[in-house]
Amino acid sequence: MRVAFFSEFDDPEEWRAILAERAPWVTLEVWPEIEDPAGIEAALVYRAPLGFFPKLPGLRGVLSFAAGVDGLIDHPELPDVQVARMVDPELTRTMSEYVLGAVLHIHREFGHYAREQARKNWFYEPPKRTDERVIGILGRGVLGGAAAITLARHGFPVMTWSRSPGGPDQSTNFTGADGLAEMLPQCAILVCLLPLTDRTRGLLDKSLFDQLPRGAALINAGRGAQVVDDDLLAALDSGQISDAILDVFHIEPPDDSHRFWTHPHVLMTPHIASYSMPISAAVPIIENLERLRRGEPLQHQVTRES
Amino acid sequence: MRVAFFSEFDDPEEWRAILAERAPWVTLEVWPEIEDPAGIEAALVYRAPLGFFPKLPGLRGVLSFAAGVDGLIDHPELPDVQVARMVDPELTRTMSEYVLGAVLHIHREFGHYAREQARKNWFYEPPKRTDERVIGILGRGVLGGAAAITLARHGFPVMTWSRSPGGPDQSTNFTGADGLAEMLPQCAILVCLLPLTDRTRGLLDKSLFDQLPRGAALINAGRGAQVVDDDLLAALDSGQISDAILDVFHIEPPDDSHRFWTHPHVLMTPHIASYSMPISAAVPIIENLERLRRGEPLQHQVTRES
Repeated sequence: MRVAFFSEFDDPEEWRAILAERAPWVTLEVWPEIEDPAGIEAALVYRAPLGFFPKLPGLRGVLSFAAGVDGLIDHPELPDVQVARMVDPELTRTMSEYVLGAVLHIHREFGHYAREQARKNWFYEPPKRTDERVIGILGRGVLGGAAAITLARHGFPVMTWSRSPGGPDQSTNFTGADGLAEMLPQCAILVCLLPLTDRTRGLLDKSLFDQLPRGAALINAGRGAQVVDDDLLAALDSGQISDAILDVFHIEPPDDSHRFWTHPHVLMTPHIASYSMPISAAVPIIENLERLRRGEPLQHQVTRES
Repeated sequence: MRVAFFSEFDDPEEWRAILAERAPWVTLEVWPEIEDPAGIEAALVYRAPLGFFPKLPGLRGVLSFAAGVDGLIDHPELPDVQVARMVDPELTRTMSEYVLGAVLHIHREFGHYAREQARKNWFYEPPKRTDERVIGILGRGVLGGAAAITLARHGFPVMTWSRSPGGPDQSTNFTGADGLAEMLPQCAILVCLLPLTDRTRGLLDKSLFDQLPRGAALINAGRGAQVVDDDLLAALDSGQISDAILDVFHIEPPDDSHRFWTHPHVLMTPHIASYSMPISAAVPIIENLERLRRGEPLQHQVTRES
């Protein structure tokens, strides 16, 4: 099977070597060097440039390297074929690790102590109790659900919110607009792991921040466009939000003049919260290529909202 | 039973209320307001001022609020009575939480990203694998052993070192000088949770740092006097040590002129790694007071090296 490859972050030679060993019936061809594009049946991409899809009329499936498929399902040229997001245990594990690290960073006040250190100030106050610090998670798909379990296992009370019911036993799970209004006032730290859709774009705005307890913290590892940046900056300036750890931004990297860069209560990380290495990501990718070969539906298909 | 109380960090009224409820046979008297000092049978202290012990000739036991009892067993006036250190599940849990938070802070490079953010630099490189990042722990008593299990459960390969054999199944355990020399070159992050004794004073010096792989990180939540500060600063300056997260210092707080305050690769926290709250610490304290009343040996007695 001939597969077109496009990614700015993944190494085609690494993938070629893995596929040669584990799925030798696959031929990887790196965009734009594709001879006879009509014979390409699948695409393995992290997003895709304009002109990519129209060139591949024989495409039957698109496999994403990323868990977040905004930018792919919004692609103006995306053909009406199956699209699968990345669901990889290692990607899920690294996201839970990032969320736990960021939550502990806030809970044990490392950012606060770094600011005090800069002032040569030894500032002691009794630490806050883990079992009284509610962590709210927006989104409880594969990533949000796993993060909820990791945080609960560590001893935090965890609440999750999603548009559809369900969720892990380890957390208190809320649904819908009423559920969000009920959850937010209880959260000391709010973690966003939502996918970017029309419903979640701009969700993290003044009205949401105002529903949190004063001094709550925000961790965003969902998508930058879910945050109204000016509202977050105003909430940080007023102290309504005490700290923000942000891994995703409207534009990555943000413009040099963006106040996130210099705000003393913002920690920026360069979209590294979760990552999948070929050694683990190859398993679900090869499984989906085999399904495509056998004419079966892809795993982890993305539902496109009409 | 009359008990003398001295601590700069613990609230006597909080303790009085808890003891009144759970051990009403105890009378707490706060130093120096003690009438009839000869009738005092036990001391509940975090260290003790000069003049404290000589005033209490009827003392039969000393109970420490702290897990680290240096400063108490080194006390020049300490009488020859039983001394018990604090072993409290909540103190152990908070220490493991601090160590996990500090390890994740280094592993996920939050300090590095904060420095890059200050330069407005979006610096992406693939994160390091958790299962290839060996965490070495110096000390495997109650605190070191619990931290080893917490880190191993999270997915890190863990090694521990202690002067006596044993240790948790979840880690590779080393003993003695040869064991230390074998362990150090394998550690990406070294965590010190040793008690301060004549054997551990100054242990973290140039020769130890030189045995670590270049760029290893150090977390010290043991005691400040275990570190040769000038050696650590030289190792940080040369890049032999990439980052240090320090909770304990020779003098707390360090003098304003100490370079730790301003070194870009040092994160200082004000001796907050572990803490025990009266609600949990009261259980082992009351147990030991009851043992003293019944004439039984104290739990968690400190062995004094002669």
